[in-house]
Amino acid sequence: MNTKHTGKQTITFANPPSIAGHACVVGPKEGEGPLRNSFDYISEDSFFGEKSWEKAESHMAKQAFSMAADKAHIPPSDIQYAFGGDLLNQCVATSFAMRDSDVPFFGLYGACSTMAESLALASMTIDGGFADTVAAVTSSHFCSAERQFRFPLEYGGQRPPTAQWTVTGSGAVILTAEGNGPYVTHVTPGKIVDAGIADANNMGAAMAPAAYDTLRTHFEDLHLSPSDYDLVVTGDLGLIGSEILTDFFRRDGVELAPFHNDCGLLIFSRDKQDVHAGASGCGCAASVLAGYLLNGMREGRWRRILFAATGALMSTTTSQQGESIPGVCCAVAISDTK
Amino acid sequence: MNTKHTGKQTITFANPPSIAGHACVVGPKEGEGPLRNSFDYISEDSFFGEKSWEKAESHMAKQAFSMAADKAHIPPSDIQYAFGGDLLNQCVATSFAMRDSDVPFFGLYGACSTMAESLALASMTIDGGFADTVAAVTSSHFCSAERQFRFPLEYGGQRPPTAQWTVTGSGAVILTAEGNGPYVTHVTPGKIVDAGIADANNMGAAMAPAAYDTLRTHFEDLHLSPSDYDLVVTGDLGLIGSEILTDFFRRDGVELAPFHNDCGLLIFSRDKQDVHAGASGCGCAASVLAGYLLNGMREGRWRRILFAATGALMSTTTSQQGESIPGVCCAVAISDTK
Repeated sequence: MNTKHTGKQTITFANPPSIAGHACVVGPKEGEGPLRNSFDYISEDSFFGEKSWEKAESHMAKQAFSMAADKAHIPPSDIQYAFGGDLLNQCVATSFAMRDSDVPFFGLYGACSTMAESLALASMTIDGGFADTVAAVTSSHFCSAERQFRFPLEYGGQRPPTAQWTVTGSGAVILTAEGNGPYVTHVTPGKIVDAGIADANNMGAAMAPAAYDTLRTHFEDLHLSPSDYDLVVTGDLGLIGSEILTDFFRRDGVELAPFHNDCGLLIFSRDKQDVHAGASGCGCAASVLAGYLLNGMREGRWRRILFAATGALMSTTTSQQGESIPGVCCAVAISDTK
Repeated sequence: MNTKHTGKQTITFANPPSIAGHACVVGPKEGEGPLRNSFDYISEDSFFGEKSWEKAESHMAKQAFSMAADKAHIPPSDIQYAFGGDLLNQCVATSFAMRDSDVPFFGLYGACSTMAESLALASMTIDGGFADTVAAVTSSHFCSAERQFRFPLEYGGQRPPTAQWTVTGSGAVILTAEGNGPYVTHVTPGKIVDAGIADANNMGAAMAPAAYDTLRTHFEDLHLSPSDYDLVVTGDLGLIGSEILTDFFRRDGVELAPFHNDCGLLIFSRDKQDVHAGASGCGCAASVLAGYLLNGMREGRWRRILFAATGALMSTTTSQQGESIPGVCCAVAISDTK
């Protein structure tokens, strides 16, 4: 037993699962950004034809799941299990998206790290011999998140420069036991790390210590350095969190910056789109992965990436009760070879 | 690959994980109920010495995790991964309980089914060869749940006869690759089933169709009938959901009732404790399992049980938007032999 457990907390797959299909669906603002050509569907309407933003978010997740299955040439009825979650209270966007799918479902909550957590558990389900075909799907919606976590949109609340803009988007990935890749080769599930940041408008700073902890452990467990990857991509630290993360590594004498990017910095143009410190949300890392990153791997742009999604595990209640913001980061290594 | 996938959606473990330790911590009302002798700790104070009910819930989960590790004679630092969740928005009770543990964490959301979901994934992590020692922990608190899902306690809202009482409690289970049992032999993760029930005061009716779907599939996948188990225990259908479930099976010509009980009916005395249709909450199934059920197995009262926790995947927002209530049920078979 336990032969796949490597070092302190990394898992090395014996038969790395293959990514058979991936799709992303986004809203109009994301469709105006620099990654516009990587999305499978861009809605011109934030409501996606639904009557509420919450229903719109479910609509996106359902569509991303269905398109990913289509692109994998796998009927949804052949998908044996699905993993997923979102930011809404009681994770209703994903539950309502999956309720008609007839696919046994594991609901997850890892805040904005949920796509990495979903990929990790979906890969473990396949490599463990429990299934051949598993889906991962997550979403977020700017308007449903603002309503729930901050202020009614109509109030027009001011956003400080450290704030990040929740992505309206969903990404889905279909994993299979056999296939031509890219392959999920390793995962490093993360510990909860709380450095004492209590500013709910500075999530990047709250999550950076968790990203540092997971990435450092991943490199140590596998005796690797950042340069062993073509791209180490966090999501979503934004500008401030990314600077803190690269600073932490610099103190260890490790240069992360040349190999690092962040989903929260990739999806919007900070110059032209007024998003302050960048983007965030379960749908940010998910739609950047299921579009730009996996497309880039298929096109040969990168051969080996480390996808390290980060989440802030707070709620409005914990912040109102004066608590600091715990962060978590799950890292998933994806390679064009087993 | 995929040799452990049995029938439609059941997983049969090759090396069934052993339950090495289990503990439960509850509040004063639970301590006055019929299972009082099965709890490891009963607080006389709903606040557990904390300043808010949410912090009290985290306190319970932390205490249950720590006691379960103690009872397993395993230092928390040897626990390789933890799975868990709760009912609070953004699952903060568990995240805050685990933030100082230094154990890599997978956050889950399966509403009141979360203990079964946690056990399923923890068992898959061990049987898949990814770890030797994994924890599962979930919680709920009557006061934090009422504040979040219903009315401020001070308002004194009336409860209809179909309503269930959220348990103040937490349960934790430690699973290991080697041990003397009881063993987790099979899991049947559930599909999301929505029969159109929209009454948020009748969760039992909303979840019963999901329990029926998962249990029927479990029996079919493994060619079993209810009588192959000493006890088929759902959680938490309460009185009304339990009657619906046994009715569904009766229509198929299957007598479930003689072998069935429900965590929501076991934990309180409906005659003396004014809980209407029974109990509910992630902490209900968890504390009944980690106390009464697993103690009973160790004492030889039951040799083989099927623990089928159920969850209602709604939020106050979906109910306010007129949505019906999707249910989910995850079944975990526990046996004194591999």
